[in-house]
Amino acid sequence: MQNFEFRNPTKIVFGRGTENQVGAEAAAYSKRILLHFGGGSARASGLLDRVKASLRAAGVEWVELGGVKPNPRLGLVHEGVRLCKQEKLGLVLAVGGGSVIDSAKAIAMGAVIDHDVWDFYLGRGAPTSALPVGVVLTIPAAGSEASTGTVVTKEEGALKRAVNSDLIYPRFSILNPEQCFSLPPFQMACGAMDIMAHLMERYFTNVPHVAFTDRLIEATMKTIIAEAPKLQKNPKDYDAWSEFMWAGTLAHNNLLNTGRIGDWASHDIEHEISGIYDVAHGAGLAVVFPAWMKHVLRHDLDRFVQWAVRVWNVELDIFDREATARQGIARMEAFYQSLGLATTLDGLGVRGDRIDEMADKCTDGDVHTVGNFVKLDRSEVAAVLRLAA
Amino acid sequence: MQNFEFRNPTKIVFGRGTENQVGAEAAAYSKRILLHFGGGSARASGLLDRVKASLRAAGVEWVELGGVKPNPRLGLVHEGVRLCKQEKLGLVLAVGGGSVIDSAKAIAMGAVIDHDVWDFYLGRGAPTSALPVGVVLTIPAAGSEASTGTVVTKEEGALKRAVNSDLIYPRFSILNPEQCFSLPPFQMACGAMDIMAHLMERYFTNVPHVAFTDRLIEATMKTIIAEAPKLQKNPKDYDAWSEFMWAGTLAHNNLLNTGRIGDWASHDIEHEISGIYDVAHGAGLAVVFPAWMKHVLRHDLDRFVQWAVRVWNVELDIFDREATARQGIARMEAFYQSLGLATTLDGLGVRGDRIDEMADKCTDGDVHTVGNFVKLDRSEVAAVLRLAA
Repeated sequence: MQNFEFRNPTKIVFGRGTENQVGAEAAAYSKRILLHFGGGSARASGLLDRVKASLRAAGVEWVELGGVKPNPRLGLVHEGVRLCKQEKLGLVLAVGGGSVIDSAKAIAMGAVIDHDVWDFYLGRGAPTSALPVGVVLTIPAAGSEASTGTVVTKEEGALKRAVNSDLIYPRFSILNPEQCFSLPPFQMACGAMDIMAHLMERYFTNVPHVAFTDRLIEATMKTIIAEAPKLQKNPKDYDAWSEFMWAGTLAHNNLLNTGRIGDWASHDIEHEISGIYDVAHGAGLAVVFPAWMKHVLRHDLDRFVQWAVRVWNVELDIFDREATARQGIARMEAFYQSLGLATTLDGLGVRGDRIDEMADKCTDGDVHTVGNFVKLDRSEVAAVLRLAA
Repeated sequence: MQNFEFRNPTKIVFGRGTENQVGAEAAAYSKRILLHFGGGSARASGLLDRVKASLRAAGVEWVELGGVKPNPRLGLVHEGVRLCKQEKLGLVLAVGGGSVIDSAKAIAMGAVIDHDVWDFYLGRGAPTSALPVGVVLTIPAAGSEASTGTVVTKEEGALKRAVNSDLIYPRFSILNPEQCFSLPPFQMACGAMDIMAHLMERYFTNVPHVAFTDRLIEATMKTIIAEAPKLQKNPKDYDAWSEFMWAGTLAHNNLLNTGRIGDWASHDIEHEISGIYDVAHGAGLAVVFPAWMKHVLRHDLDRFVQWAVRVWNVELDIFDREATARQGIARMEAFYQSLGLATTLDGLGVRGDRIDEMADKCTDGDVHTVGNFVKLDRSEVAAVLRLAA
C-alpha cells in the first residue's frame, strides 16, 4: 500500500423524498444561488418544481441556467460564471447527472477569478478557491456528486479536458433513488458500465499489498452486477436503485483508490472513440475494456485470476490460470451484452478504418504513453483498438 | 435500505513517516495546542519526540497532559478542560489509541462551555461547538480516529457513558502502521476483536435490502481475518498492519452503517463484564459474541447463513441451513482462540456467579431491552451470559 491522504467532505443525503431538503441544505451556504440543470427530464418529472418549492420555503432565491448537454460545453460555463458574478450568487446547485455537476463545478471555479476558467483545464495554474457546489443527482453513473473532478469540452476544436481539485467536492449531494425510475434502460446500462469502469481502472494496479481495497472494489462490482439486471426487468425497483446509486457514488469518491495507483488507459482510449463518433461514454467503455484486458492480461495474470474468481465466480483452474482469467473477461462481456451494450467497435456501428488516427491522437503522436498498469504507446493503443474491432 | 445522511470530514494522512506531518496539520488550526497522551509507550517508542519536533518546526506551542488510562477518566478530562481555558489552547491533539482520543474529544467539548462536560454524557443537552481534535494513532482498534463517539468513565460510581456528535469528528488523523510494531500480540488480538465487533454489530440488522453495505462489511471482516494471523507471526509486518489499520478505521467511521440499523447488544453486555471484572474490552467481546449469536441465530437464519458462507467460507448445506450457520460461529470461535482470546467466561477467568447481577444492570432492572436485531430483556441477557459460561 502506498502512503495516501483521504478526505471527502461531501454530505450525502440519501433516500426517498430527500430532494425536499435541498432548500435547507442550500440556505446553509447562500440565500442567492445559481440553479443549474440540463434539459427537459428534470422539468418533465416534476423534480425541478419540487426543488424550487424547497428553495422557496427556505427563503433561497435563484437564477436559472438550464441547457447543459452531455459533454458539457465551455460556452454555457462562461454564461454561468457571468450570472454568478453579475447576480452575486453564492452557491451553484446542480440538478442532474454528471454533465450538469461537472458544468456546475466549472462555474464555481470561474465565478471567483478574473481570468478564464478554461486556463485551469489547460493546466495553467490551479484553483485556490471556488463557490460551494450542491447537487440533486438524477443519474447514477459519473460519480461526480462526491468527486474532485470536472470534465468540460471547449467547442472550438472539440477539446475535452479535466480539472481535479479538493475545492470542488460538492458540499452536499442529495440522492433519491426514485429519481432514477424514468431512466431509459440503455442509460441505466451505460451508467452501470461507467461505474464498473471506475472500479476496474482502480482495481488494475501495480501497487502490491492492497488486499483490503481490492475486496472493497470487488464488493462494489458485485453489487452493480447483481442489481443492474433487476433494473433492466423493473426500472422502478427502489431497492435495486438504492444499492446501485450508492455503489455508483462510492465507486468514484476516492475511497477505493486509497493507497493505490489506478490505470485509466481505457478512459483515455474511449475518449478518442467518443471524440470522433457520437457514442455514449459508457457504451464506448464497454467496447474498450474487454479489448484492453485481453491485451494486458499477461502483465499480471494473478490479478486477473483473482478478479475472475471473486467477481465473476469463475472456478479456478489452477493448471490453466490464463483460461480462468479469460473466462472472467468472457463473463464480463456477456454481462454487458445482456444489458444491451455492444462489446465490439463493429457492434457499436464504428468501422475500424480510423484506428491509427485514434491511436495517434490518444498518445499525441506517440509523444506519451497512456495507462499506469501497463504503459501503452501508440502501437499498443492501436493493437487494443484492433482487438476491439 | 433506510434513508440516511453521511458526512465524514476527517482527513486521513496514512503511511510511513506521516507523524512528521503533524505540525503542519495542527498549525492549520492553532499555534497553541494541548498535547494529550497516555503513558510510557508513546514516549518509549520515540513517537512523542518526533511529534514534538514536528510541532516545533511548524511553530506550534503545546501544553502537555499525559496519563490517560484505558477507560479514560473524567478527572483527567476536567484537568484538560482547565488547561485549555487557562492557556487559551485552540486544538486538542491526541497521541495514542481509543482512550486518549475519547478523552481528547471530551476535553474539546468541555473547553468551550461553562458547565461540566459530564452533563453531555448524562444526556443533559448536546454540544453546539467544540475545539478541533487531531489524532496521531498508535493502536488500531476503537475506530475513534474517524468517529463521532467518545466514551468516558466517571470515577465516582464507575459510570461509563458515551456521547456521539458530528462536532467531534477529528479534523485530521495520522495513521502510520509502523507505530503498531511494538504492540503486544494480545493487544493486537483485542484490537482485531474490537474491529470485528464493530462490523458484526452493524452486520446483524433487520433492515432489508442492504446488499451493498453487507458486502462492504464482509470485505472488511475478511481483511481482519486474513491479516491478524500474519501479525501474530510477525508483529513488524508493515503490509499486514496497513490493511489492518485502514480496515479498523473504516469499520467504525459510519460509512458501513449507511442505510442500516446496527444491533449493539453485545457491546452493552460486554460493558457489564468489564465493569465488574478487570478484562479488556476486546477480550470481553470475544466471549459475548459467540453466545449472543447462538442465542439469536434463529431470528434471521438466512443472514447468519450468508455470513457463514461469505465471511467464513463455510460450504452451504442447503438441507441444513442451521448447521451451516453454526459452522460459521464455530469458525469464528476458532479464529479468536487462534489469536489467544478466550471465548468463554470461564476461559476469561470469570465465574458465572454474578450473571443475574450483570443482566440486571444491563437492563437497569429489566426496565429496558438491549439490542435492535433482537431486543433482549433481562432474562435473555442472562441466557446469553449463561451460554457464554
